[in-house]
Amino acid sequence: MEDINHQLQHLSENGLGKGSLTPDQQYSRISTAERLDVCVSEAILVMECVPEVLDLKREVWLDIDRHVQGETSLASSSSAIQPSLLSSDMEHRENFVVTHPINPPFYIPLVEIVRAPWTSDKTVDMVYKLMEDIGQAPVVLQKEIFNFVAARIQNACLQEAWWLIKDGVADVDDVERAMYEGLGMDYAFIGPLERLHLLSGGFERYMSQTSELYCSAQEPFREPERMGGHAAEVMERELESFARVSEVPDRRRWRDERLAELSKLKRQLDVKEEGT
Amino acid sequence: MEDINHQLQHLSENGLGKGSLTPDQQYSRISTAERLDVCVSEAILVMECVPEVLDLKREVWLDIDRHVQGETSLASSSSAIQPSLLSSDMEHRENFVVTHPINPPFYIPLVEIVRAPWTSDKTVDMVYKLMEDIGQAPVVLQKEIFNFVAARIQNACLQEAWWLIKDGVADVDDVERAMYEGLGMDYAFIGPLERLHLLSGGFERYMSQTSELYCSAQEPFREPERMGGHAAEVMERELESFARVSEVPDRRRWRDERLAELSKLKRQLDVKEEGT
Repeated sequence: MEDINHQLQHLSENGLGKGSLTPDQQYSRISTAERLDVCVSEAILVMECVPEVLDLKREVWLDIDRHVQGETSLASSSSAIQPSLLSSDMEHRENFVVTHPINPPFYIPLVEIVRAPWTSDKTVDMVYKLMEDIGQAPVVLQKEIFNFVAARIQNACLQEAWWLIKDGVADVDDVERAMYEGLGMDYAFIGPLERLHLLSGGFERYMSQTSELYCSAQEPFREPERMGGHAAEVMERELESFARVSEVPDRRRWRDERLAELSKLKRQLDVKEEGT
Repeated sequence: MEDINHQLQHLSENGLGKGSLTPDQQYSRISTAERLDVCVSEAILVMECVPEVLDLKREVWLDIDRHVQGETSLASSSSAIQPSLLSSDMEHRENFVVTHPINPPFYIPLVEIVRAPWTSDKTVDMVYKLMEDIGQAPVVLQKEIFNFVAARIQNACLQEAWWLIKDGVADVDDVERAMYEGLGMDYAFIGPLERLHLLSGGFERYMSQTSELYCSAQEPFREPERMGGHAAEVMERELESFARVSEVPDRRRWRDERLAELSKLKRQLDVKEEGT
């Protein structure tokens, strides 16, 4: 509770508060409970954030399921597991979705909403609206897939980076710089398809102009491989130039400070754009 | 020349000028030539920017090769082609590298320097130093590979996005948002490996904790396929919500305005960090 209070004050001081209530008013509306039935029985939304272990999550949800009303929306913050695997045995499973935020959610607005085959439109709409109301940027996946959208794109980047480093084309520092001094600056404002749409004056044009080059570029693409072992050790040694493991908390603060500034900048640019 | 003058003034007015000379002083040092020998014979660096066509680039380089002195560094701005393919028949091939900037280079500092097997260290060092001096962020590839580093990571993102959309998991708008409202905000400051290093308090730890999950996530990864045809048409229609082809120039200005602000923000944060 102390940490929540601290974060509410901090966000507000930095012009990144949300909603119309003061931090103190917001804080006063938060309470804790030690019994699950007390916690969930009158909720409009239950958001579960226990560790990413399938059996644990399933167990917690069967327990919640016994205590909620029929109108309550039920959301797991799982970062990878399909909602059908979490909710198949639940009585209220039509109220169930995954809502996956990206850390730190104060600065990164994306929330992936993933529906199971039995999730009702009403539930999706309610959760979508709520996420929009609190200033997040929800996207709804139309089909379940392990790892969802953002982490799959992240993994595709990671896999390519892994090969480039293992093959001796570039070292960790070079790959990291290629992202944050290059591509990544675009990706803060536009996605991977629009980047090419803008580059060539049309996505189809890009595809038709470069398909031959592109296909030969893809040839050296290989089957994904299990990453780890010695190569991961070497990469971690190189990552120490950014932060040793003991320095990770400090480096996270460094990153979060930048994300906060980027978040403010994007808001300012949006306001300016709406004004014109 | 008018466009160059305009851009120099514009960058300077926006606090994004480089070097110690005024825009007018910089502009007065630029001249044009209509004969190749006049253009290159006394250069310290020749940077070639003709269209991305192998035979054309080879022909231009054989021509340049006849007119340059032994000390001149020779750089192609090719965005994909290995330097050995461009320079194999040149007399001064030990002076040859690819220096690939990312558009727009005023705001995106990355320059990929790619050496052929015969490129001298002296040439790499000279071009690296020059790129640093003009405020770019050079990375040196230790081995030739088609498409270099940034575009390979870009293509890995694109391929994954392509599949997610074709499989009906998400539409174009969702994938784009997953990047620019999510992952991409991180990628403006940190690369794909450090992102996981920070997430889990160590890259190795991430790899060992998630390798099983990660491997099952990779299972649905498939062979790259030739992108284009009907699916590309459908995606272009969806991309029109961002910009129709006729609106691409305006949308590029929209993007460049944001990149300029991000570029300024990153400079300010670096200056603040150095001051502490």
